[in-house]
Amino acid sequence: MMDICLLGTGGMMPLPYRALTSLLVRCKGKGFLIDCGEATQISIRRRGWSFHDIDTILITHFHADHISGLPGLLLAMGNAERHEKVLIAGPRGLQHVVQSLLVIAPRLPFPLEFREIDGQEDCFSIDDMEITAFRLEHSMTCYGYSLHLPRAGQFDPEAAKKLGLPVQLWHVLQKGENAEYEGRVYTSDQVMGPPRKGLKVTYATDTRPVERIIEQAKGADLFICEGMYGEKDGPEKAREKKHMTMQDAAQLAKKAGVPELWLTHFSPSMVNPLEYEEEIRAIFPAAVIPKDRRTKELRFED
Amino acid sequence: MMDICLLGTGGMMPLPYRALTSLLVRCKGKGFLIDCGEATQISIRRRGWSFHDIDTILITHFHADHISGLPGLLLAMGNAERHEKVLIAGPRGLQHVVQSLLVIAPRLPFPLEFREIDGQEDCFSIDDMEITAFRLEHSMTCYGYSLHLPRAGQFDPEAAKKLGLPVQLWHVLQKGENAEYEGRVYTSDQVMGPPRKGLKVTYATDTRPVERIIEQAKGADLFICEGMYGEKDGPEKAREKKHMTMQDAAQLAKKAGVPELWLTHFSPSMVNPLEYEEEIRAIFPAAVIPKDRRTKELRFED
Repeated sequence: MMDICLLGTGGMMPLPYRALTSLLVRCKGKGFLIDCGEATQISIRRRGWSFHDIDTILITHFHADHISGLPGLLLAMGNAERHEKVLIAGPRGLQHVVQSLLVIAPRLPFPLEFREIDGQEDCFSIDDMEITAFRLEHSMTCYGYSLHLPRAGQFDPEAAKKLGLPVQLWHVLQKGENAEYEGRVYTSDQVMGPPRKGLKVTYATDTRPVERIIEQAKGADLFICEGMYGEKDGPEKAREKKHMTMQDAAQLAKKAGVPELWLTHFSPSMVNPLEYEEEIRAIFPAAVIPKDRRTKELRFED
Repeated sequence: MMDICLLGTGGMMPLPYRALTSLLVRCKGKGFLIDCGEATQISIRRRGWSFHDIDTILITHFHADHISGLPGLLLAMGNAERHEKVLIAGPRGLQHVVQSLLVIAPRLPFPLEFREIDGQEDCFSIDDMEITAFRLEHSMTCYGYSLHLPRAGQFDPEAAKKLGLPVQLWHVLQKGENAEYEGRVYTSDQVMGPPRKGLKVTYATDTRPVERIIEQAKGADLFICEGMYGEKDGPEKAREKKHMTMQDAAQLAKKAGVPELWLTHFSPSMVNPLEYEEEIRAIFPAAVIPKDRRTKELRFED
């Protein structure tokens, strides 16, 4: 299971009625946060989710609206008695940027580990969660992220019985490990079916609507994508500022064939993004124009 | 006239229902901000006051809850088309701290000027406004601030007539300048009475209740002071963390003889500071336990 909360839907600056875009994902007792703008910690409090369990913070890029809340969040995590390491991943230069910001929070009660991302793509795992960072096209180096929780194949008890394995060893193979019994080694694939569909969420902001996003979003259960402008002259503004329109995002979702799209990172000039809903849904019917803190529980099929 | 808005009343971390302590003062088209924590810019928006006119930012100290919102505020000021210089004053090391924070806002459309404060006291003026920074006693170097708008004496038209000065020159003397007429120099004090009572607000947080605060608050029309704890074991916590209690603040206000005290910088653990109101008013009847964005207009007497 993956719990997903879009903590805010705004871009550029936090507004009284619209928090900055940031995503919190909970899975198996671990928290993954993508971006942390000013007041993201307030939105987490409003949602009532824990600070303590945020193990991984993924930063898309270093514009203030995506990272300015980091010192405050890390201090709040310290106040929530976190002592375990926190991993922060983001573009090259991350450690310098974070350490500069931490001039006002020089002592945290937990260590930080940095993963600086380079090149077009970077894949790494945090326990079961597979994270893919993929390069976007913005006015500075920026990455989108996919979080993928794989699911093992189905266990075949008949196969295990045929091998003559005692029941006490079944759980070892079910976890994907090898089991040894009476001098012989048994491998997981002898008793497990092919991997089943896992859970995946893909997050892309701030960026032009490049092809790579379609490839990355394929297979996602939920695609969260910026749609900074909706208005008539949106395409022009989006080109100029290296963003995309809600219509662009809907096209990407359509091409990726995802079951659901949430738009986000609305321009402060866009007072009511819902006025474009009909137009967007004509392109991609499963588009959602969410309110702050929209939440969804992704569950394995069947 | 001085417009005063206490943008928040919280300490340590911003809460959904309580913004961090910060004060915005407007006077003659200029804005003076004391402290800028995470989400202070949201509180300014909520109040509806302009970002554009904030000319002076006074920082008490470098704990995150008093300065973490600075990059976001400066960016918002840039978005509000500010191009004129902004003065930032604060303890020694200010420029290094602010420039570190600005790693995520490297290009602002206005220049910054820094005034690093040292020693026990520092006085400077921004146009008519006289600012006094005074050293507090906290776990790091910290300053309180008084903002004083002086008021000239009353103009005496009879005296001006006696001097034989034409009416067209009166306004020169009224502004405190010298006037020349038929080869003679006339000075302001020849037609103006003694200076009248001006307007003054004094702001002190985070600190132990040291004597110096009483001296500084004397003559203030409004004294804004931290009262981090109200509970029974408050004095112990306050000593340990180099803060003060609401009761301490009330004693300071009483000794300074101010007409009004606003308490602020409430601990996140204090859910309802109003429960201590009766006790505090028994010490100092003109104590106010304000809500965020409490506003007051100070006007000259008569």
